[in-house]
Amino acid sequence: MLERLRIVLIGTSHPGNIGAVTRAMHNMGLSDLALVAPRCEAITQESISRASGADHLLHQATLHPTLEDAVADCTLAVGASARSRTLPWPMVSPRELAARLPDECQHDNARVALVFGREDSGLTNAELQRCHAHVHIPTNADFSSLNLAAAVQVIAYECRLAWLESAPATTSAAEENDSELASHADLERYFSHLERTLVAVDFHDPDKPRQLMARLRRLYLRARPEQMELNILRGILSATEKKITRSEK
Amino acid sequence: MLERLRIVLIGTSHPGNIGAVTRAMHNMGLSDLALVAPRCEAITQESISRASGADHLLHQATLHPTLEDAVADCTLAVGASARSRTLPWPMVSPRELAARLPDECQHDNARVALVFGREDSGLTNAELQRCHAHVHIPTNADFSSLNLAAAVQVIAYECRLAWLESAPATTSAAEENDSELASHADLERYFSHLERTLVAVDFHDPDKPRQLMARLRRLYLRARPEQMELNILRGILSATEKKITRSEK
Repeated sequence: MLERLRIVLIGTSHPGNIGAVTRAMHNMGLSDLALVAPRCEAITQESISRASGADHLLHQATLHPTLEDAVADCTLAVGASARSRTLPWPMVSPRELAARLPDECQHDNARVALVFGREDSGLTNAELQRCHAHVHIPTNADFSSLNLAAAVQVIAYECRLAWLESAPATTSAAEENDSELASHADLERYFSHLERTLVAVDFHDPDKPRQLMARLRRLYLRARPEQMELNILRGILSATEKKITRSEK
Repeated sequence: MLERLRIVLIGTSHPGNIGAVTRAMHNMGLSDLALVAPRCEAITQESISRASGADHLLHQATLHPTLEDAVADCTLAVGASARSRTLPWPMVSPRELAARLPDECQHDNARVALVFGREDSGLTNAELQRCHAHVHIPTNADFSSLNLAAAVQVIAYECRLAWLESAPATTSAAEENDSELASHADLERYFSHLERTLVAVDFHDPDKPRQLMARLRRLYLRARPEQMELNILRGILSATEKKITRSEK
């Protein structure tokens, strides 16, 4: 899916921004960049520096005289836009846009253009009207203009998430845990041991329990201890008991 | 909710990145920036230029010698991290993190630190282990290092969306808790006390630390102790120390 997404930048005026856009694209797994009538050189020391290792995308970028030309083979074009324009247009959030893409990209010839305007003035009405829909990143109303690469970053991030979610399930959750959760029985053995030790250090009087054990249960159960963590906790209790016995001798 | 979120940048080396971070923050409605031991000037021509109108956040930013100091009053600290480390830690996606924040921020004293590391090397293991959880932006495995401001942009964007979606505040979380969450500083005092006690009961040798303190940190941070629970835990440590001293006499 990601290989069917094209980032189209119109009239960009800062090489650094073009470089930062390629970095954001490559970070999110996008690679197709089209530059429409840029107002600066695309390949400069600054753009290469800001690309930070993604400068192959700068070299692969295609150059176009018009938006028309850049999206000629696209089946869907979506323009990034500030909120309302004189003529209301179908408006989606980045997340809504991304949610459509897995289906959209099922088509054999699918190619989706995500179109971004000039740093100072965005897209013209004529350009916006060449798009099927507009995407608006919800920003602070008092300070709504995102940096170009930041806008590409947010949209590309949503596209990547939608792609990851549409892919067959991953196994990450299982991999993140290095150990099994402690069983209920293990936990109960721990709580018994804990109570004995608390009595031994004169912190707990079972005849005046207040809510001590209940509070400690709530705390430890909330943490969902792993088996190995419970081994450490029990090791601490055993060491404490041993130390006291030895000190008393 | 957004006013309770603090962006913490550790050891940043490029003023332009700090400026770009303030722009991303202000775009998303965040305003609390903490700089920990920056390796460059924060207020320069370049940072002001990249802030692009958000430079009041540069001037308001607080300066700190250590992460410790920057998050002392925070009730939750989340560190931005690449995927796996030697010791796995609770890991959330930006979206999962953001989904937790509306409830999290119900607490009266809630303050959430979102911690970002150095451009070249990220956060150290010691810094990561001071965080309750780590947040990982799902990137292209072959090109995973985001620009600092781009990473802040993505996380802040998710926070803003969660805030917009939560609109009329819910009260459930606050009602469920009978006590305030322990602050970062309280937790650190507890960990110091715990380490001393573990040495006293001969369970821990700081010269051969294995990963004992890291594992215990992970466990307790996961549980999000309340102030009162922390008082109990410290009471147990004090009782243990007292008992040993008395037994030895």
